[in-house]
Amino acid sequence: MFEPTVYEGRRRALASALRDRGMRGRALFLSNGESPRNYPGNCYPFRQDSNWLYFFGLGEPDMAALIEIEDGGAILFGDDITMDDMIWTGPRPSVAERARASGVDLARSLAALPGMLAGAPADELFFPPYAREESVRTLSGMLDIAADEVRRRAGRGLTPAIVALREIKEPREIAEMERAAAVSVDMHQALLRELRPGWTELEAAALVEYVAAKNGCALSFSTIGTTHGEVLHNHGTELPCREGELFLLDAGAEVPSGYAGDLTTTFPVGGRFSPRQADIYRVLREMFAEATKALRPGLPFVEAHLAASRALACGLKDLGVMRGDPDAAVAAGAHALFFPHGLGHMIGLDVHDMEGLGEDNVGYAGTPRSAQFGLSALRLAKPLVPGMVHSVEPGIYFIPGLIDQWKAEGLHREFIDYGALEAWRGCGGMRIEEDWLATPDGARRLGPALDKSIEAIELARGNL
Amino acid sequence: MFEPTVYEGRRRALASALRDRGMRGRALFLSNGESPRNYPGNCYPFRQDSNWLYFFGLGEPDMAALIEIEDGGAILFGDDITMDDMIWTGPRPSVAERARASGVDLARSLAALPGMLAGAPADELFFPPYAREESVRTLSGMLDIAADEVRRRAGRGLTPAIVALREIKEPREIAEMERAAAVSVDMHQALLRELRPGWTELEAAALVEYVAAKNGCALSFSTIGTTHGEVLHNHGTELPCREGELFLLDAGAEVPSGYAGDLTTTFPVGGRFSPRQADIYRVLREMFAEATKALRPGLPFVEAHLAASRALACGLKDLGVMRGDPDAAVAAGAHALFFPHGLGHMIGLDVHDMEGLGEDNVGYAGTPRSAQFGLSALRLAKPLVPGMVHSVEPGIYFIPGLIDQWKAEGLHREFIDYGALEAWRGCGGMRIEEDWLATPDGARRLGPALDKSIEAIELARGNL
Repeated sequence: MFEPTVYEGRRRALASALRDRGMRGRALFLSNGESPRNYPGNCYPFRQDSNWLYFFGLGEPDMAALIEIEDGGAILFGDDITMDDMIWTGPRPSVAERARASGVDLARSLAALPGMLAGAPADELFFPPYAREESVRTLSGMLDIAADEVRRRAGRGLTPAIVALREIKEPREIAEMERAAAVSVDMHQALLRELRPGWTELEAAALVEYVAAKNGCALSFSTIGTTHGEVLHNHGTELPCREGELFLLDAGAEVPSGYAGDLTTTFPVGGRFSPRQADIYRVLREMFAEATKALRPGLPFVEAHLAASRALACGLKDLGVMRGDPDAAVAAGAHALFFPHGLGHMIGLDVHDMEGLGEDNVGYAGTPRSAQFGLSALRLAKPLVPGMVHSVEPGIYFIPGLIDQWKAEGLHREFIDYGALEAWRGCGGMRIEEDWLATPDGARRLGPALDKSIEAIELARGNL
Repeated sequence: MFEPTVYEGRRRALASALRDRGMRGRALFLSNGESPRNYPGNCYPFRQDSNWLYFFGLGEPDMAALIEIEDGGAILFGDDITMDDMIWTGPRPSVAERARASGVDLARSLAALPGMLAGAPADELFFPPYAREESVRTLSGMLDIAADEVRRRAGRGLTPAIVALREIKEPREIAEMERAAAVSVDMHQALLRELRPGWTELEAAALVEYVAAKNGCALSFSTIGTTHGEVLHNHGTELPCREGELFLLDAGAEVPSGYAGDLTTTFPVGGRFSPRQADIYRVLREMFAEATKALRPGLPFVEAHLAASRALACGLKDLGVMRGDPDAAVAAGAHALFFPHGLGHMIGLDVHDMEGLGEDNVGYAGTPRSAQFGLSALRLAKPLVPGMVHSVEPGIYFIPGLIDQWKAEGLHREFIDYGALEAWRGCGGMRIEEDWLATPDGARRLGPALDKSIEAIELARGNL
């Protein structure tokens, strides 16, 4: 974790922002607890709550904290371990030691918390939303209110202030994210080098996770590693990878401090792209180039998404799959048959940063979200500000079920040549992704370069 | 999964057992849903509920089912995927197809379920306990009762019948567990061969998980891999392993059908056991030999635990650490300073099989659990029956905090030579574990042999 003053400063900044909004009282935060896998004693690897990591930095489960809105002062609540804990799970820092590490002056036992909350009016006690029902239950018990009431109140008053703080990354956070991106590049390079026809998708994902773990990292999300990239979040199967197919790897490292990397690479299972795959891949690279060329402070990120979309429409027109005016095709949403998701999302302590606070609260800043298919899936649309970190991840997909549906409904016939498209429908899906930082004078990639040109990818694949 | 008739037969057997207890009405089962890691859209790898796997076998999330106690007939509730699901997570079998695979005649949408449950009296609707609060919330909503009421009723009437079925493994289950044990042996052999001084504990765990994943398996629990084996459930750190230390690996594979393996190996980080480590390790092997020698149908497993405990007391007496009559030492619980946990637990679809149904319900069959330190941690005490699978896992630990506490309190001075013990207190912890099946005429190990003799271990460590 960072120095105690970092967390103290963030808490004071939060309190100040809440005072500016005319709020008073206290903000209550919970750490995560363990999360059961198949029975209470058999848990998934522990993952701390991201807001907790941001404001307190402590990695242990089963804590809570109050921040006084008046001055940003905080109290940490937790329990020291028993002899039984010591035998089964080993020594841990005392709650007083943890408080010091987090720059908190006061430490109390968890049992003291409900009494301090008793009778607090709803407009003087604020808490963020929690993804896990265990935390909702804990809050419900502590506050003596129904679980539904917990869910209704969660985030109220707090969310905009938390988003405003967490979305601008400090230099120390950027350093962590550079490392997350660097380990993520290692993971991708390892698979680029090692994958061979006959490997199953699960074996590929296993290697990627191994490289992360050898580097002391977790995965920032369950690896998407598949020869069926046209299924956007395909988590892999026992299917063997076959010569002639493309392998799509979307995977990232999470460093011990909790910051995420998130990269995507697409490469041939055999040594070479087929001519048709190469044609599409070149369009994909052009989407990426157009999107990143547009990035600068003040640019609404939706504009980068649209720049990539226009490059897609132009490229597919050149290949005869689309037709008509590319700008008009994008305005109508016809390109979304091939690019049904957004260009990117913020990244930080969550790989979709702060998604638990509400995608619109994080990515739209009050502007309405488009209802158009494809654009409606864009997670980040608002103007870029220096310090924001986001993904750039254009994709091109040939989704048989969706093609059939659009064709049957005759959708966008003026922009899509369904006859010509038939020749491409087996091309699957491809995506490339990097993590980018908005800087005062433009934008830059985080982590080392991984050359994704056809030449470099085929060279990395070796003599297959 | 197995053939549909397997699940149909198990459901009929459950219904018949419930009728024998005079019960009537229906049993309600839920599949698991996804389990959020840091936000709702970023989930841990999906793990199905074990009771669901046993009675329905289906691997998908978000389903429910009713079993009629009258005749064992069942209805499966679930929803077919939407086009959006198809784009993001890919094709899935329809609910009707899943019902057929599970031998269920009727398939309905989830929305139909609450109406079918409305007004069911508490003594005609039964459901098992769920580890996850998400499932408690679902049940609370479906039944329109408070979450606390869900927890109070959970398992009532069902638990003994489920335990009686799941604890006796069918040949097809034993075949799955043989494979889980075999992959687990591969995992251990890989680390035995590869670990070198300087590796971190996390790197070691990463290799073990990689071997499981390459074999298409998950981990049956978070790997315990540490040079501080005296912390019983130590999940490893960034600490490097050092020459002279012992590495304790407790790790197992979970095959795709859900069955668990669970093995423990302890070996030197360098190439050789120190003389003192070898002395203790020989006592540990003797504990294992005495315990497994005792195994036979009808034997209360607590007797095997006590046989291992007596071997420990004898061995430590020979080394001068304990003294007095070993039988009396074990009766008094003095040996538990060095062996504070139980000899084993049942294994099946959970690595601590059915622990979510209550350890006493599974391991004690109505007999009271000892309150004595050490013996109180024994998870399985009741008589063995052919078809039961359980671990055999003696351990010897030198836990500084516990030694200091006992010494300060003067506990069991007649059996423990605290002066002599000082020379051993840096020895850490060691444990060995195999998975055993109770057979009609005795017992046998599951999976291939992994020779854990000092000679074989040192040979496997190679020329370090």
